[in-house]
Amino acid sequence: VIERIAPGSTVIDLTHGIARHQINQGAAVLANALPFAPPGVHLAVVDPGVGSPRRALAVRVAEDDRVLVGPDNGLLWPSIERFGGVAEAVDVSQSPFRLEPTSATFHGRDVFAPDAARIALGAALGEAGEPIDADSVVRLASPAPAIESERAICHVVSVDGYGNVVLDLTAGLLPGRGLRLGSPLIVEASGASRDAVFGRAFADVPAGELLVYEDSNRSFALALNRGSAAGALGLAPGDEVIVRPRE
Amino acid sequence: VIERIAPGSTVIDLTHGIARHQINQGAAVLANALPFAPPGVHLAVVDPGVGSPRRALAVRVAEDDRVLVGPDNGLLWPSIERFGGVAEAVDVSQSPFRLEPTSATFHGRDVFAPDAARIALGAALGEAGEPIDADSVVRLASPAPAIESERAICHVVSVDGYGNVVLDLTAGLLPGRGLRLGSPLIVEASGASRDAVFGRAFADVPAGELLVYEDSNRSFALALNRGSAAGALGLAPGDEVIVRPRE
Amino acid sequence: VIERIAPGSTVIDLTHGIARHQINQGAAVLANALPFAPPGVHLAVVDPGVGSPRRALAVRVAEDDRVLVGPDNGLLWPSIERFGGVAEAVDVSQSPFRLEPTSATFHGRDVFAPDAARIALGAALGEAGEPIDADSVVRLASPAPAIESERAICHVVSVDGYGNVVLDLTAGLLPGRGLRLGSPLIVEASGASRDAVFGRAFADVPAGELLVYEDSNRSFALALNRGSAAGALGLAPGDEVIVRPRE
Repeated sequence: VIERIAPGSTVIDLTHGIARHQINQGAAVLANALPFAPPGVHLAVVDPGVGSPRRALAVRVAEDDRVLVGPDNGLLWPSIERFGGVAEAVDVSQSPFRLEPTSATFHGRDVFAPDAARIALGAALGEAGEPIDADSVVRLASPAPAIESERAICHVVSVDGYGNVVLDLTAGLLPGRGLRLGSPLIVEASGASRDAVFGRAFADVPAGELLVYEDSNRSFALALNRGSAAGALGLAPGDEVIVRPRE
Repeated sequence: VIERIAPGSTVIDLTHGIARHQINQGAAVLANALPFAPPGVHLAVVDPGVGSPRRALAVRVAEDDRVLVGPDNGLLWPSIERFGGVAEAVDVSQSPFRLEPTSATFHGRDVFAPDAARIALGAALGEAGEPIDADSVVRLASPAPAIESERAICHVVSVDGYGNVVLDLTAGLLPGRGLRLGSPLIVEASGASRDAVFGRAFADVPAGELLVYEDSNRSFALALNRGSAAGALGLAPGDEVIVRPRE
Repeated sequence: VIERIAPGSTVIDLTHGIARHQINQGAAVLANALPFAPPGVHLAVVDPGVGSPRRALAVRVAEDDRVLVGPDNGLLWPSIERFGGVAEAVDVSQSPFRLEPTSATFHGRDVFAPDAARIALGAALGEAGEPIDADSVVRLASPAPAIESERAICHVVSVDGYGNVVLDLTAGLLPGRGLRLGSPLIVEASGASRDAVFGRAFADVPAGELLVYEDSNRSFALALNRGSAAGALGLAPGDEVIVRPRE
């Protein structure tokens, strides 16, 4: 659809690997990838509410020359925050750029792609849809981690293709001086406790052992060297995980 | 292979997600996608008979400036029909454009890709292969749906990545005025009956409930809101499904 | 990352389907694909040791105008051999082209992609890293097949998406005149024996029967027509397979 409307565009597929309906995972992957991608029009679709009255967004962000296009369900929110918030937002649900007839279940094809393509060609957001209040853009609903002196109660944000488990925990949230490389930890998940070590990379622990590390997007994460932490611990997005020091 | 023969070509990957050997699924996905893609040379390979005497096709269609390249096993047929039938067809099995030595099991690389690339560069079909009779192109063998006054006996055409089940049933086949949004239905599949509702989009039914809807390609389809209809009903391509009104 | 550093580059995704940590599979797929790809900078990452002291390589090969970029763990070795060996090699672990801060676990993004992009733009290898001895590049550790007069003891190199099993056996290794099409064989794997036939393509045997064939890269391979040989025989990369004539 994009190549047809805007021939010769550079289209970069970031991923087709988001688990179905996992808005939180899609939101995290998008917000972590975009700072490494060139500015442009960024189209993202994880859209279980397609066909319901949820709005369809095109948002110009405050920093950098980027426009985000996708459903108004929180998917775009972390990326909007990462680039300084909303500079301009429109609802493209009834966009004149839509393909007709517009299907009820495939807005990626019929609404988001044609709007992204026309904006990439230079259309103003005001031509693509109706202006909306920046404050009305849907935020991502996610539980907040609770940091106590002796433990961090956090949550699974996403699981990658290796079974590595990304947590909503960052070094800045930890009290005091945080962790040191090699610190022994206990990870509580799915009703069981498991020994772990704080390390830097997978090879810092023997094969099959659990590692807590700061991942490539500066989030804390769990990995099993040469295995799947999500599989071994029975974890899925949204699950609670407790990390605490081991005596 | 295409970039090597025709540097700078725009290559669009439609999908690498067709289930293995599922010619019907590949044929349906291709025919549904191409009307949204720019004209060009369309290469498709689902080819369980590779290495057998099945022919290899390049077909110029009657409408639009499109050439289809792939095995002569029915895969291309629905797309050929969608664009007005065969204008010109050749068998490229022994094409002079083949890579040598030609393997017995990877004609995507050795036959179809080089032929598609040379045709994209401007080669005439007559240079790529031997002319064949348009009527000899293999049609897709698929059972026809039976529409009765009180029920439609139809079949699974394909299952998408969400577990949504596409049927060989369209609104035009239904007697009378067809269905209304909200109509209660019964879906019989795999020896069991299940209540369903005719709706427009997934969010029209509660999570876990069965929806019959007209999909983005105007085929009737089954979905389980936030779940997998194919998984819940045990359905695979070719299976029979009966849809009837619920009193 | 590449598009940001080298806008307008042609980026070809060969595959994202290598099983995790399977350096041997990645190495085989890469070495088999590159001869069909145009010369350029070839970036490959299967990197279970990321973050350990393993080196990061950029290697100019002796034949053709190609540079290989990836971890120094054997992944690149078969491709280096295929193009005549090392002409020039550097360690890019501390490359000035790295993204800062460099993560401990995602060198594909932070080290390999920026180095590949800069080399594609024309940077000399000497600018990208420190020269290293060609002989110090890590070779792929793989068991050698043992060819006896009455049997070949070989190993699984990789399993493709169809469950076809590639062996480290080629026609050149076989004693005498090798096999003839239609020769009855026995395949011993996972402690069981199974009848097979030497054929040319999948359709040479009935559905569900085992075929030994020379694959599209001239390696011997096992296939189950319309099924998965790896699944039926319980085979994974590295496993031993014995192929012998059937009386």
